[in-house]
Amino acid sequence: MKIISANQFMMHNRHNLDLTQQGVALDDTVKSIIDKVRKEGDNAVKEFTELFDDAVIDKLTVSDSEMEKAKNMVGDQFVESLQLAAKNIEAFHRNQQETSWFTDNPNGITLGQKVTPIEKVGIYIPGGKANYPSSVLMNAIPAKIAGVSSISIATPPRPNGSINPYVLVAASLIGVNRIYKMGGAQAIAALSYGTETVEKVYKIVGPGNTYVARAKKWVYGDVAIDMIAGPSEICIIADESANPSYVAADLLSQAEHDEEASAICITTSSTLANEIAAEVTKQLSELERREIAQKSIQNKGCIILADSEKQAFDLANQIAPEHLQLMVSNPSAKLSLIKNAGAIFLGPFSPEPLGDYLAGPNHTLPTSGTAKFSSPLGVYDFIKRSSIISYSKQALLEVADTIDCLARTEGLKGHAMSIQIRRDSVL
Amino acid sequence: MKIISANQFMMHNRHNLDLTQQGVALDDTVKSIIDKVRKEGDNAVKEFTELFDDAVIDKLTVSDSEMEKAKNMVGDQFVESLQLAAKNIEAFHRNQQETSWFTDNPNGITLGQKVTPIEKVGIYIPGGKANYPSSVLMNAIPAKIAGVSSISIATPPRPNGSINPYVLVAASLIGVNRIYKMGGAQAIAALSYGTETVEKVYKIVGPGNTYVARAKKWVYGDVAIDMIAGPSEICIIADESANPSYVAADLLSQAEHDEEASAICITTSSTLANEIAAEVTKQLSELERREIAQKSIQNKGCIILADSEKQAFDLANQIAPEHLQLMVSNPSAKLSLIKNAGAIFLGPFSPEPLGDYLAGPNHTLPTSGTAKFSSPLGVYDFIKRSSIISYSKQALLEVADTIDCLARTEGLKGHAMSIQIRRDSVL
Repeated sequence: MKIISANQFMMHNRHNLDLTQQGVALDDTVKSIIDKVRKEGDNAVKEFTELFDDAVIDKLTVSDSEMEKAKNMVGDQFVESLQLAAKNIEAFHRNQQETSWFTDNPNGITLGQKVTPIEKVGIYIPGGKANYPSSVLMNAIPAKIAGVSSISIATPPRPNGSINPYVLVAASLIGVNRIYKMGGAQAIAALSYGTETVEKVYKIVGPGNTYVARAKKWVYGDVAIDMIAGPSEICIIADESANPSYVAADLLSQAEHDEEASAICITTSSTLANEIAAEVTKQLSELERREIAQKSIQNKGCIILADSEKQAFDLANQIAPEHLQLMVSNPSAKLSLIKNAGAIFLGPFSPEPLGDYLAGPNHTLPTSGTAKFSSPLGVYDFIKRSSIISYSKQALLEVADTIDCLARTEGLKGHAMSIQIRRDSVL
Repeated sequence: MKIISANQFMMHNRHNLDLTQQGVALDDTVKSIIDKVRKEGDNAVKEFTELFDDAVIDKLTVSDSEMEKAKNMVGDQFVESLQLAAKNIEAFHRNQQETSWFTDNPNGITLGQKVTPIEKVGIYIPGGKANYPSSVLMNAIPAKIAGVSSISIATPPRPNGSINPYVLVAASLIGVNRIYKMGGAQAIAALSYGTETVEKVYKIVGPGNTYVARAKKWVYGDVAIDMIAGPSEICIIADESANPSYVAADLLSQAEHDEEASAICITTSSTLANEIAAEVTKQLSELERREIAQKSIQNKGCIILADSEKQAFDLANQIAPEHLQLMVSNPSAKLSLIKNAGAIFLGPFSPEPLGDYLAGPNHTLPTSGTAKFSSPLGVYDFIKRSSIISYSKQALLEVADTIDCLARTEGLKGHAMSIQIRRDSVL
């Protein structure tokens, strides 16, 4: 794993650029898929499923008997692990619930904000070789807490037409309303506009490949989306107190996700940097997914030698990583130095995989520097607010001149008239 | 103004469709503008300003002397009106502030959520014939409350190279950091990617024409945006207690915005429907912007005769209007029937223009049915959250088997190893 200076890193850092361009070459394909699904509905979805997923499916929805079969396939240990994860995720996200509020004052003005759940939400869960029951939990639980009344999952079928049983069991545990066997851009189109079988939703969340990401960008506006996610990232700030074998293991846990995943360590200690590099080499050989991890470390990984702690945190804020681990002494004292990060892991016993599965906070996090402007998925993603304005006659008349002045400044006489007519009729 | 049945309305209702297609014909132009600004910076912005705004400008920023001149041009009444509006807007939005929170439990687990402001924000303010000092307040005040440290405004210059003085005075009142003389897609590109003069921002908010909306859709992902807004809308639910002249005036206050604006009234009373229609005809003749308002009423306006109060509210939820006025007896008792609306105005003395300028809640609201999934602009648009996870050694070891089980189910052995290595080293 290469060791470079902060300056070298900044010169080559292509982190926060061109998320809008990722997958742009697929646009014609993606747009034609969306158009066809809007026109031809279920049939188009089935055609694309045969083409892209090699699966011939008769019904788009998962049947009760398929669900029963899945429950018999997964072991008890998995179900118990899932239940513990669900319990922790629910406990954390309950803290994010928002309530409606009102303020009123003596002269008859009541203002407020009404919080309502989004009615219908679609969750995309990747399929193929991957298998992410944890993503079902992370996306569906906050939606449930928000009060979403209709939750649909879309996930591509395997060539034999079935859905991964672990994903099905997770969906059943949370109580989603329906599961569709469809993936890719065709799933995003069907959820956005509806088909004979698929209920139109108002928001689509969940991870996906480039086709899914690009389709989400295209339907954005007609439906809401959670975010456009890039490859996974970890940034670890480590000082002499850090155990190099822990740091290496955590870097590799990101690197094994994807060849494009990025694993970065920042330290002021060149001794530690060398120890971590050696540990990465050693541990790589023990990984099942070593080829993927090795490419990721080669292409995107590095250990950055910073001149000072301040420079280390400035760099991390510039990177705005999805996952930020502070493997330094007294890590919570450094929280105030962090401006941009998806999730922050404190100390030697809070490795990133703990957050992926079990601790409770969401694992759907902003990537590619978007932590500069976005948040982990949360209950707040599944609600919306309405302002409430209630004025008495007296209160309105008191501000009539002010409204009149501002409306006329903006050339909107009709606005002024709507106040005027009330003044005239009551004077 | 036409009076139709609920069924007739539903058959022709094209409300919530195809926001993604609005302005698609401009895409090639918009994309070439964005590319040129990214490559050529300031010079490209100035070229487009000459082409689209007929203005030859030397410096992109507003100078101190221009600001002084503006202050001398606007009257005292305007400044006082603006100050009252700013006070109310600030008071309302203070209620939206979020704070970081933590939970901890005895066995050494601390979880939390850290709230930080987005560092750099750009606000787009339309120019040309329009002139919207109120939009400066509505966009900049929540950003200030959130703690945004760098607020930039972009607004197109007039042909003589100057900026509308009312907009400048509003910007000065709130204390924005800088004002750029640029508009259209070129302004969105410059804010998104930076130029020699223009500082790159992380989020762009504010209203704009089709070029601006389309450019925002294109840069979305590299920067955050508030929303893609369509034409303005009002929906009024009225019963026999409503004064038809008030209802008519409020419908027209929306209609005068834009030929594409939509003004709809829903009532169960055919007597009231006829009275409102007559009042609209009468008041139209008194409007300065009568041509615009008339076209809007003809194209998009209607009075819907509902069979029941329930049908009236169901329709309103289906429309999910930007502005919803309840001109019914005991309106606050009906709040629970409302699922989707940007802002809700209660009773005869809460006309929509009150919300446009002065009451305090934001006037940047979801349009075209997007209130089904989005909220008024608020302080929450200018912050982001980071999850915090801190586990003790003991707490991690207690859940090690669970994480191991879930990680292996998903085929991610590196994730399991990051836990394993900590277990081995401490046992």
